[in-house]
Amino acid sequence: MSDQLTKRDADYAQWYNDLVLKADMAEHSEVRGCMVIKPHGYAIWEKMQAALDGMFKATGHVNAYFPLFIPKSYLAKEASHVEGFAKECAVVTHYRLKSDPEKGIIVDPDAKLDEELIVRPTSETIIWNTYRGWIKSYRDLPLLINQWANVVRWELRTRLFLRTAEFLWQEGHTAHATQQEAEEEARRMLDVYATFAEEWMAMPVIKGVKTASERFAGAVDTYCIEAMMQDGKSLQAGTSHFLGQNFAKAFDVLFTTKDNKQEYVWASSWGVSTRLMGALIMTHSDDHGLVLPPKLAPVQVAIVPIAKNGEQLTAIDGYVKPIVDALRAKGITVKYDNDDKRKPGWKFAEYEFKGYPVRIAVGPRDMENGTVEVARRDTLEKQVMQTADIAEKVEHLLQAIQDNLYRKALTMREENTHVVDSYEEFKDRIGQGGFFMAHWDGTAETEERVKNETKATIRCIPFTGDKTPGKCMVTGNPSAQRVIFAKAY
Amino acid sequence: MSDQLTKRDADYAQWYNDLVLKADMAEHSEVRGCMVIKPHGYAIWEKMQAALDGMFKATGHVNAYFPLFIPKSYLAKEASHVEGFAKECAVVTHYRLKSDPEKGIIVDPDAKLDEELIVRPTSETIIWNTYRGWIKSYRDLPLLINQWANVVRWELRTRLFLRTAEFLWQEGHTAHATQQEAEEEARRMLDVYATFAEEWMAMPVIKGVKTASERFAGAVDTYCIEAMMQDGKSLQAGTSHFLGQNFAKAFDVLFTTKDNKQEYVWASSWGVSTRLMGALIMTHSDDHGLVLPPKLAPVQVAIVPIAKNGEQLTAIDGYVKPIVDALRAKGITVKYDNDDKRKPGWKFAEYEFKGYPVRIAVGPRDMENGTVEVARRDTLEKQVMQTADIAEKVEHLLQAIQDNLYRKALTMREENTHVVDSYEEFKDRIGQGGFFMAHWDGTAETEERVKNETKATIRCIPFTGDKTPGKCMVTGNPSAQRVIFAKAY
Repeated sequence: MSDQLTKRDADYAQWYNDLVLKADMAEHSEVRGCMVIKPHGYAIWEKMQAALDGMFKATGHVNAYFPLFIPKSYLAKEASHVEGFAKECAVVTHYRLKSDPEKGIIVDPDAKLDEELIVRPTSETIIWNTYRGWIKSYRDLPLLINQWANVVRWELRTRLFLRTAEFLWQEGHTAHATQQEAEEEARRMLDVYATFAEEWMAMPVIKGVKTASERFAGAVDTYCIEAMMQDGKSLQAGTSHFLGQNFAKAFDVLFTTKDNKQEYVWASSWGVSTRLMGALIMTHSDDHGLVLPPKLAPVQVAIVPIAKNGEQLTAIDGYVKPIVDALRAKGITVKYDNDDKRKPGWKFAEYEFKGYPVRIAVGPRDMENGTVEVARRDTLEKQVMQTADIAEKVEHLLQAIQDNLYRKALTMREENTHVVDSYEEFKDRIGQGGFFMAHWDGTAETEERVKNETKATIRCIPFTGDKTPGKCMVTGNPSAQRVIFAKAY
Repeated sequence: MSDQLTKRDADYAQWYNDLVLKADMAEHSEVRGCMVIKPHGYAIWEKMQAALDGMFKATGHVNAYFPLFIPKSYLAKEASHVEGFAKECAVVTHYRLKSDPEKGIIVDPDAKLDEELIVRPTSETIIWNTYRGWIKSYRDLPLLINQWANVVRWELRTRLFLRTAEFLWQEGHTAHATQQEAEEEARRMLDVYATFAEEWMAMPVIKGVKTASERFAGAVDTYCIEAMMQDGKSLQAGTSHFLGQNFAKAFDVLFTTKDNKQEYVWASSWGVSTRLMGALIMTHSDDHGLVLPPKLAPVQVAIVPIAKNGEQLTAIDGYVKPIVDALRAKGITVKYDNDDKRKPGWKFAEYEFKGYPVRIAVGPRDMENGTVEVARRDTLEKQVMQTADIAEKVEHLLQAIQDNLYRKALTMREENTHVVDSYEEFKDRIGQGGFFMAHWDGTAETEERVKNETKATIRCIPFTGDKTPGKCMVTGNPSAQRVIFAKAY
């Protein structure tokens, strides 16, 4: 399979697309812009969901579910919000089909809705319209709610996982009595996302705040985590918004304070989506196929018997059983593939291409020697191991793979992060990809100029790192600190 | 709270509606027919999902995700399928809004879709259109896929959980090489649903096959589980369909057999939905509020301290801590509610009303005596228990509650199941509710007549029980076996 894969050096975008398709992660459906997430891809998404959901609950959040449809008038209530989403709304206008003797099945013109419904592109409006009924007093606050859902943002140019008309995500929507609490919540959830990205996805991220022009439609501040892909482009992996009182004001959500005053509620919202699947692929995978961090691999260890006949296979089955049991007892997920419909060579190729972190082969000689052959996917190294303490060895190996993937990605990012002070140098080098730490004068005009001239955008104003003031690389005007410029997905 | 609840005897439908709202399970949104599932309701749904998902995976199924939108032409490909769903389809016709100087935000008439998209009412068509690309040979079969998703069936008269325009569900869609395998799969998944209903929901069900007129649109056979609600009405809690080759033929899905022939693929589909939430409520809850089986309760044990002052509270905190630890060590979910914003009386009422299976109260005298007061929700009984081995005692109590709820529901059903041979007697008694085991001549005409005259339908032809032939209670014509007539949700 990997021989049919475009090489990354040859065409990174084509490599990505090939890989998503051939590794059975996802495919385009015939419905414009909508993807089918195939079982192998969905199993990884389920792992992501489980980890994130656990982290949300550990920080006091609960799940709920709000309607798919949003009345058009709701969207219109928050001015910058509707402006941000109007151009990509799927609109439901009718609620019935009927049979027409000439044209077959048609939309029934008599079943037109009085008010059109928008398929949610995000749920701030319908949720804040609901919160009006839920929040009366400071006792009802904070409200810490998350929703796992599908959303639709009509896109004409789509890429699997990275940009699709329908995608899956979670959206947190919280309500607070004070500005400080809402801001802390937005920052807390950004930290949760960063921890998830680094500890589970083995993907280093930079936390920061977006510039005004890159802010979420309706937010006061948008925080983000940005990751560098293997081609040096940046990918926004998650965002968290401090919404101020914008939605509370648009939907009249007031609460009685302890001092018996009426005040508008403060809000945050935050989300990550199936886009993370694209980020995961473009952080670790290689010319041989998928590479998955063990903590998100649907199956961590594949075991393949190499037998010449049924008798040998039965013997290997018996030899492998205690190994499988020992691995599972450690919570390691294992597939023992003794299916005789496929040859061992096909299986090796399959498990390598689909990113199983560890592959174990067992043949007759292994039984004689009390060994197995262990291959790790990240480095493609193989070693023969004695079966004594095999579960401990594999457990350490999985941790080593997880650590190695993170270190490799971090090194890659560090090697491709450049401090630049001259706009000429910036323009020369931006085409090669990477993060450029440069001074910026804080104006939308300069940001726009750089974007128009180089296609690079300010990915974020990072929270940590060098905070020394300087002069804007473009205008020479004063700059508070360096920001990150990069081309982005 | 329970004093504001309509009594079941007074108005069962109103009791149900009150309870769903007041117990914070769900509410109507302002979007016609769509509900908001509130955190307490959603937490129960999550427990249901986790249990079902585990059972699906244990029977070899994997999850995937298919598009929300279905092109109108797909629906039209299977004739009886489109006939069944045409009248309840939400239709997307446009993909953009725009600002109009006079009317504000309007649907952009220039952004009309060439082909209208239906918001999925069920996914057979889009999935079988996709399976055409996935299935080439017998090696690709069986394909055992499930999807967790939202679906939309436009309903004008809605009831929370029981009948809503949007609802959440899972839909399994499997593909097989032989008719026998597909039929076995449909029956296997019906068994999974029955096991889930009885062992997790503590809700006894009857398995059977639907009559032709109650069949899923596009199915060859529809199997179902039917449960009796407290008012004697039947609720169809899950269905599983043997689809024959209908969808394979509509979407040209053929496979190469081992003998190198081309054959159409055989199919099953099966689903349960948030309707189960309604079934759960109407099986166990009472005039005091929700009653939840411990296996599906989001929190199984609530512990409430009764303290006169901060000092006492601190002492109780210390007294309770090892109890909480011991319960959690057994996998029991516990909430220790020492929040001082609410009084103990408020908390007792809250936990009773919301169906926490076990409530433990701890006051100063308990500390002196080494006791706690334990209340069980199902019987409302209280007893003082020594704290020695408290975790074991509570574990047994939770199991006793689970068993008692099932037994009570089964007894209720048995007492309200009647064998009738005369149509006169049937008409006299059907108004009181219950299941009526009666002979039927197998014709749609008789079924229709009974429905028109009594509003009762044939819920299913049960798989087990009395199989003696007899004479139809309406026409006197031969009948193969008794079937179940009942009024239904």
